[in-house]
Order: sequence, then structure tokens, then C-alpha cells
Amino acid sequence: MANIASIDQHKKGRAVNSVDEALECLQTQVSADMARVNETILARMHSPVALIPQLAGHLIASGGKRLRPMLTLAGAQLVDYKGDRHTKLAACVEFIHTATLLHDDVVDESDLRRGKDSANVLWGNKPSVLVGDFLFSRAFELMIEDGSLKVLKLLSHASSVIAEGEVLQLSISNDLDTPEESYLQVIEAKTAALFEAATQIAAVVAERPENEELALASFGRHFGIAFQLVDDALDYSARQATLGKTVGDDFREGKITLPVILAFRRGDETERAFWRRTIEEMDQKEGDLSHAIHLMETHEALSDTIERARHYGAIARDALALFKPNNTRKTLNDIVRFCVERAY
Amino acid sequence: MANIASIDQHKKGRAVNSVDEALECLQTQVSADMARVNETILARMHSPVALIPQLAGHLIASGGKRLRPMLTLAGAQLVDYKGDRHTKLAACVEFIHTATLLHDDVVDESDLRRGKDSANVLWGNKPSVLVGDFLFSRAFELMIEDGSLKVLKLLSHASSVIAEGEVLQLSISNDLDTPEESYLQVIEAKTAALFEAATQIAAVVAERPENEELALASFGRHFGIAFQLVDDALDYSARQATLGKTVGDDFREGKITLPVILAFRRGDETERAFWRRTIEEMDQKEGDLSHAIHLMETHEALSDTIERARHYGAIARDALALFKPNNTRKTLNDIVRFCVERAY
Repeated sequence: MANIASIDQHKKGRAVNSVDEALECLQTQVSADMARVNETILARMHSPVALIPQLAGHLIASGGKRLRPMLTLAGAQLVDYKGDRHTKLAACVEFIHTATLLHDDVVDESDLRRGKDSANVLWGNKPSVLVGDFLFSRAFELMIEDGSLKVLKLLSHASSVIAEGEVLQLSISNDLDTPEESYLQVIEAKTAALFEAATQIAAVVAERPENEELALASFGRHFGIAFQLVDDALDYSARQATLGKTVGDDFREGKITLPVILAFRRGDETERAFWRRTIEEMDQKEGDLSHAIHLMETHEALSDTIERARHYGAIARDALALFKPNNTRKTLNDIVRFCVERAY
Repeated sequence: MANIASIDQHKKGRAVNSVDEALECLQTQVSADMARVNETILARMHSPVALIPQLAGHLIASGGKRLRPMLTLAGAQLVDYKGDRHTKLAACVEFIHTATLLHDDVVDESDLRRGKDSANVLWGNKPSVLVGDFLFSRAFELMIEDGSLKVLKLLSHASSVIAEGEVLQLSISNDLDTPEESYLQVIEAKTAALFEAATQIAAVVAERPENEELALASFGRHFGIAFQLVDDALDYSARQATLGKTVGDDFREGKITLPVILAFRRGDETERAFWRRTIEEMDQKEGDLSHAIHLMETHEALSDTIERARHYGAIARDALALFKPNNTRKTLNDIVRFCVERAY
């Protein structure tokens, strides 16, 4: 049904011009499956302990893009999977992602005043951690019901890589001497690993040959890296700010992302002192974010971050070439293409 | 080797008179296997991200009793298991337990001043959470290597029950109207579930008949409940205080445990006002802990908590009767017996 609808949409020739439109298009193409993913999510995040569905629902139900489970569903369409295991596993992927978000938002004493409306602000650190643990365990219970040791292996490995990446990110935080390689290692771990597993498991349940499995994994992985690079660039985008979107979160946290690494390296002594004060010493005043963006633009730190993203995006798109052309392939291609273009 | 040593020890007739001596005895009986568990733990908590082994090592290496993995090893001896899968799985059990401890120690804004030397105090909340996640994922990776879906099912279920129990505990915290049933539900979830899974998996890997598997599960579960009841009583024990052990942690946190529930219910209006001020409103002054212990003694709240523990301990010991008598069975019996007696 959903597929016919989306084919109609394509026939109507609605041109896709942005990553948001491409994502909407994919949403339509996987909507029937996504409805079942949502059913599983709602059913399995339930608990007689009321705080669990309350807190989990805050994050899960409050309309995220569901990008990661969407990748599993799209992967299943690429390999023409006819079964029904993928929707349950896509729900696992979303549970793991949500658990990660809940844990990622836990704050240390030092930044208790960040003041975002995240779950930890509304309920406190401890419930966020424990509900994250619950979702994480629930994800494993669901995977075990599915019964594939290979799927379990891929997703448990992704989980430990994510945790490792988050700790690495913490280790290099506020350190401007972080090499670009370490930054890349962080985003490969904390973002790309789950994208990779999410797409790869579609080929696993469809029992496709290894080359297709690896192609899906490669697509997920490289799209994940590109996605995170763009995300890190957008956090300093003046254009995003004019669109009313939040910018500067990373700056306020003193997070070491590629735009900062590049601007710091390319800056003169005065500029480096500015970065040391704002990012290392976390001594920030009004106007500092604008100045940071200005310095990044001067040194093309943002456009070069997108340039790096374009490299990984190209690899992701080439990985898709193995699959027969269909609407899903076209849409995934569009998403990656517009994703790396959305910043400019 | 270890077995022969322990048999010798028994022949020498060294009498076991306390839970500590019984635990030492079990440690000797499983020492060869425990050495392999420790090897696995050290090897598998390793990561190139240095903070991970540092922080995990702080908890794991700093000589806990290793009670939970010991239960898996003892269970394997009870069913005369000859393979080597149990040591790896015992390491998983310890990883899950350590992850739980790390997450349990994360503090909310409200109690930042608890001031214990736990990992979160030394490194902050966030690393504790993330390293916990790493250990948790690592545990699953290890279980998946082992390859038994049944073991995976038991331990993933235990994990989600633990998380659910911890959230429940949080929901009832500082609430003196908590019924005894809810308290029991909390300790069944947060303590007994892992004890149960730890012992049960020994019968699973040994492929023992269902009655033995259920007997081991029942032993673990009921011992777990008894163990936690005693632990909660000891936190208010004047005798523990004279032995130089810390008491009053639960009181200072306003934790609802059975001694508090009983003392509150059995108290008159003045006493209930005392409990409301100290536990619900968390307004505590010097002398309050002593007064709390005094009230508990007046109302036999501590001895009755131990009485409840004795009930569960008896069930645990009867579950052991199914297995042929050997040193391990005797020692487990001693541990449970002395555990419920250690408070008096």
C-alpha cells in the first residue's frame, strides 16, 4: 500500500529538493512497516512501573525522525525482503538509540546549568540512566526473541563500540590538540556504528549474499559519518540560526568537533587564544559564538567539514549501486546527496 | 586441585562459624575456576580508550566478594559440570553487576553531596554511565560468543528486571506509605533476579534436567531475597557500628527498606512524625540515626526483617536438597544459614 502511494507520488513527479523532502519521501515509502515498528515500540516499552513508559515516551513518542529504524526498513526494501522480522529489529535499533540519548544527556556536576529540556532535566539523572538501561535490556530481549545470533552479534558489537566512542569523546573533551583522526574515531563509533548495524541487519534477515550485506553495511557506515559531520557543521551555521534552529550547543559544551579543530589549527595566535579561552577554559561571553562562527567562515572550517562529509557521502552512494534501481534506492541516494548539501 | 585443597580443609575439620568463613570456604572451593573468571574479566574489560579499564578496574579489581560469579561456579559444581563455558558466563554476570553498580551510583542534583568515594565521585556521572554501558554491552558480546540463546534470554531478562526494579525503587523513594509488597518487589528485581540467573545458567550449560535448573534458580532467587533483607537490616545494626562497619547509608539517602517500613507502621504519632521528617522530608540532624536504630529495636523491626530473611533462606536451602551432598552443597548451605544469622 505504502509503496504504491509513494510510486504515485513519484509519478506525479514531485521533485525532491532538500534532505527534508527526501526524508519525507522515505517515510512514505516505509510507512506501512514503520507503523508496525511503532506498535512494537509502544508495546515493548510498556512496564507496570509507570515512570518507565512516561520517561521513555517523552523521547520515543515525541516524534524524532526515526532515522535509524527507517534505515533498517529501507535496507529491507533494497534487498526485497518479504518477511516480518525487520520491523521488530528496527524497534530494537530505536531502543538502543534512545537508551544512548538518555545516557548521553546525563550531566556531570560541572554543567548542571546547561538547562535543556531533556529527560534528565525533567526527571533527574538517575531515572534517565535507569530507563536507558531498561530500554537497552528490552532491545536485547527483543533480539533474542528474533533468535539470530548474527543479528545479536552485530547489534551488541555496535552497542559496545558506541559506549567506547562516547567515553573517547569524553576523554578528548575541551582538548584543542585533538587530532582530526580522534574526532573521526569518535563519530565512527558514536554515530556510524549504529547506522551500519541498522542497515546491515536488513541483509542478514533477508539472507542475502555477503556482498550485499557488506554493501548495506558500507552504506550505513559512510552515511553515518557524513551525517554526523554535517550535523557538527550545522551547529555553527549562521543560516540555520536565521531559520530559527538552535545553533551553538556544541560550542557551549566546549565539544571538540571538526569545525573547531580546523578553525583552531588554521587560526593565528590571537585566534587560538580565543579558542583556548572559550573551548578549553569554558570561559564564554556574549558575542563569542558569533565570533566563533566568523572565524570558522574566515578559515573555511565549515565548508571543509562539509567537503569531508561529501567524501563519505559519495562512498555511501556508490555502495547503493549494487542494488537494483527502485524508489527506495533513489530516495536513499537523494537523502545522502541533500544531506551533505543542506548546509549551504 | 582447588577441590582437593578444600576437601583437605574440611577433613581437617575447620569449623565454619560465620558467613565470612563460609564465603572463604566457597572461595577456596571455586578458586581454580575463579582464576579463569578473573582472566576473562581483565581481558574483556580492556579497551584502547584508557578511561574504560581505569574506571571499570576501580570497581572490578578492587576486590569485591565476586559473590554473583561465585554462585555460577558453585552451581556448576553442584551439577557436576565438566565443561568450560561457565567461567566466561560468570564473567558476564560480574560485568552486568558492575554496570548496575556504576549506574546505581549516579547521583541526581539533589544529592550531590553524598560524598562517597564511588566511581561517580572520582570521575563524574557521565563516565560512570558510559563505562557501565560498555561493560553491559561487553557482557552481551561475551554471551553471544558462548552462543546459547537460553542463557542470553535468562540474563537479558534479568537485566531488564533489574532496571525495572531500580526505577520502581526510585518511584517509591522517600514514601513511607510504601507497602511491604512493593519493597519485596524491588529487592526481588534489583538483587534476586541476578542471583537467580547466575545460578540457573550453571544448570543450562550443563544441560541438566529441568527440575535441577529450577532448583538452582530457586536457590539463587531465595538466597538473593534473604541476602538483601539482611543487608538492609545490617545498615541499621548497632553491632555493625561497633565492628567499625558503616551503617546508616540507607537512612541518609531516605531509602525505604523493610526496617523503616516496619518501624514506621508500628510507631505512634510522634514516632511517625520523626520518620516523616527524616525519611520523607530528608531533614536529618545529629542523633537522628541513633534514634532511628533505637525505634527499630523497640519495635523489633530489625529482628523481624531477619525473620523474613530466615523464611527465604529456608526455601533456598531446601532447594539445594535435590543435589547430591558434596562440599559445595554444604558450603552454600552454610552461607545461607550464617547469612541470616549474622545480624544477631
